[in-house]
Amino acid sequence: MGQEFIKTLLQRNFPMNSIRLLAAEHGTGKKIIIRHEEVEVKEATPDSFDGVDIAFLTMGSEMSKYLVPFVLRAGGLAIDNSAAFRLEADVPLVVPEVNVQDIKRHKGIISTPNCITIQLATALYPLHRVNPITRITVATYQSVSGNGSAAIEELTTQAKQVLEGQTTFPHLYPHQIAFNVLPEIDVFLDDGYTKEEWKIVKETRKVMHADNLAISATCVRVPVFTGHSAAVQVEFTHPMLVDDAERLLAQAPGVKILDDSTISLYPHPWAVTGSDEVFIGRLRRDISHPNGLALWLVVDNLRKGAALNAVQVAEETIKRGWLRPGR
Amino acid sequence: MGQEFIKTLLQRNFPMNSIRLLAAEHGTGKKIIIRHEEVEVKEATPDSFDGVDIAFLTMGSEMSKYLVPFVLRAGGLAIDNSAAFRLEADVPLVVPEVNVQDIKRHKGIISTPNCITIQLATALYPLHRVNPITRITVATYQSVSGNGSAAIEELTTQAKQVLEGQTTFPHLYPHQIAFNVLPEIDVFLDDGYTKEEWKIVKETRKVMHADNLAISATCVRVPVFTGHSAAVQVEFTHPMLVDDAERLLAQAPGVKILDDSTISLYPHPWAVTGSDEVFIGRLRRDISHPNGLALWLVVDNLRKGAALNAVQVAEETIKRGWLRPGR
Repeated sequence: MGQEFIKTLLQRNFPMNSIRLLAAEHGTGKKIIIRHEEVEVKEATPDSFDGVDIAFLTMGSEMSKYLVPFVLRAGGLAIDNSAAFRLEADVPLVVPEVNVQDIKRHKGIISTPNCITIQLATALYPLHRVNPITRITVATYQSVSGNGSAAIEELTTQAKQVLEGQTTFPHLYPHQIAFNVLPEIDVFLDDGYTKEEWKIVKETRKVMHADNLAISATCVRVPVFTGHSAAVQVEFTHPMLVDDAERLLAQAPGVKILDDSTISLYPHPWAVTGSDEVFIGRLRRDISHPNGLALWLVVDNLRKGAALNAVQVAEETIKRGWLRPGR
Repeated sequence: MGQEFIKTLLQRNFPMNSIRLLAAEHGTGKKIIIRHEEVEVKEATPDSFDGVDIAFLTMGSEMSKYLVPFVLRAGGLAIDNSAAFRLEADVPLVVPEVNVQDIKRHKGIISTPNCITIQLATALYPLHRVNPITRITVATYQSVSGNGSAAIEELTTQAKQVLEGQTTFPHLYPHQIAFNVLPEIDVFLDDGYTKEEWKIVKETRKVMHADNLAISATCVRVPVFTGHSAAVQVEFTHPMLVDDAERLLAQAPGVKILDDSTISLYPHPWAVTGSDEVFIGRLRRDISHPNGLALWLVVDNLRKGAALNAVQVAEETIKRGWLRPGR
């Protein structure tokens, strides 16, 4: 994930005088070439952020909770990719295509949503604006790369073992992930939902400013390296014609429609890895609801699903002169 | 699939004086040991069915359309696993746990539904009986084995190629299936749905005798060898408590609940392959609808999803004395 951030910053020519790479103790020491200069990954400590304007955090909730206060103390802006602050009232949760104005009221922390929320909000907000959405149901097909390199290794190792007729041993995931699907992402809560499923509910409401939006999700891990897909059904206040939805989405920022059934054209993870957009396909009437629409979304979970969205937040913050906390 | 039928017939001690194995021209010649006797696979011809009481057909719609008239001419009962006759008014479409009484009115043909319909109907009918279902939305995670041995080979070959860094070439599927997911099963229709998705709508209505049931589906192929999963959301006429649903399903035939989030217990394809039941997990309130329930289903698509259901239909037909056509 850290590498995806570096790649994104460089590809987009992000304005930087200097860059520091920080990791938890076990990730330090590595040297990475950035613009012909060798930069060593150092340990993140309370003193790491002196003189930093923007800190991108993508080390998980615990590390964000620990480090963000030091970013604030040093007068920097923390753009946090973890769930640590996403639902706090005075922390904007931002998908630039949807609620860029929320950045303005930041107090030093801006959070970015989980990857499924990013793709739902980016794809659905252009429709919600003209015909308010009342309910979303979603089933996900989430790749392993969101869990880091250990997860990619686990899928790779297990896949080889299965193909060679060997026994597999789950480590990171509770059961075999190779040639299997697991309806468990993040921890289970008492109501039978997982934390990941509740994140989608609460974060999508916050990003879209739609407190009463009904949402339910089933989050499923699939044996795919990169690219999160989602089968989505949406209910609107009024009927939504497929043609109208297509027209609105064709003009919307950050999305791309790939939808021609006559040539089996629709987004799938293998094809969209490395791309920036939220891809939309299988756009059709939901035949089970008078105001319903069904669609299929795929996003590169490391790019727009994480690094790209955070970098876009930083770009907008700079461009609009909102770097210093608002009141 | 043929082998799954033989295995199921033998395991269940199906009453047989003799068995004939028939295939299209290209599948003939193979010899299979059945109860210590060698049986050769012969070519299916118009004369293949003389003296046959029950013919199980699982060679696809075209072959069923061609061969079933000869089964009828010979006075036999055709139990057809294909889509050829499923929606014809005088052909019962049967999941024994749901609508065994429909067998009685057969005129020589009984159809069995597609595998997703079998698992939906088996799992949901016990709830529908006490609290009529008004709407079902489903997203599927379907394995490749329903497409036969060529599909298993395609997934195996492509997975090896990806792991070795080689380029893959799709044959059976329109895009790479290894480490990927494809929202396309069966052909696309003009309305943007696939035929597979419409089968689920129409067949589930017919099996459950629920002509007005609203259903919509997104069918997705996943890189799994055997076992079809489904994320399902159900709306009832009245609220359905999770405890009540669990109690009803615990007593229902053909289903098994695997649901304990504290130990990551839920069905997943790798674990249920080779089992007879429709497995139910992730049973929870649908937080997006007042009368809603959400659940996760997994079935071995070759067994209850196909061969077992057909053999169960035959067993019930014999047991109830309904072998000869009703009027």
